[in-house]
Amino acid sequence: MELPVVLDCLSDPIRLAIVYHLAQHERDGTELRCGDFNELSGKSNLAYHFAKLRDSGLMQTRIAGTNRLMKLRREDLDARFPGLIDAVLKSAARDAGRLQLVAECEVADVD
Amino acid sequence: MELPVVLDCLSDPIRLAIVYHLAQHERDGTELRCGDFNELSGKSNLAYHFAKLRDSGLMQTRIAGTNRLMKLRREDLDARFPGLIDAVLKSAARDAGRLQLVAECEVADVD
Repeated sequence: MELPVVLDCLSDPIRLAIVYHLAQHERDGTELRCGDFNELSGKSNLAYHFAKLRDSGLMQTRIAGTNRLMKLRREDLDARFPGLIDAVLKSAARDAGRLQLVAECEVADVD
Repeated sequence: MELPVVLDCLSDPIRLAIVYHLAQHERDGTELRCGDFNELSGKSNLAYHFAKLRDSGLMQTRIAGTNRLMKLRREDLDARFPGLIDAVLKSAARDAGRLQLVAECEVADVD
């Protein structure tokens, strides 16, 4: 994980929104599915952003049946860049409305 | 100042190096001159990066004679994005060698 790559990854509003939503669900241990982000953008555009998030090291995906379940690589990130993700999420939360991070990103139950 | 814009601005290795050097001199109150960054890149490329840094709100410039003196807008940044710049600088410092932040960026005395 490289700092410029991670910062670049977070600088896109859609990827920032994805990270924001993953972070909101990390406390309860919920992984999110691709479909949980459909309000943010079109399917192929989301696939591109998911790939960027994986490649940069920000999130990981695991396959469960027909689902891809995503979560932040929080421990790795905090070890590598102490305080960075928290600071980004805190700033993002303050501007959540204007940054349109709070799309109606419904989280479906994962079977 | 908008979070995605600031993150994008910091995601470029040359701009990150400029910010890093400005931060190293903020304690002693030293402002830096354009010429202090000549080791990082060519003159016109640096001018482009300085403009991005100003436009994003990361730094400010004041004119003193024939010099442009630059410094981080640290107070504004810390008020707007608490902890963000510190976390970025801390991570940058850890990787300073690999990120080539420590070019022979000599700081000349400003008259």
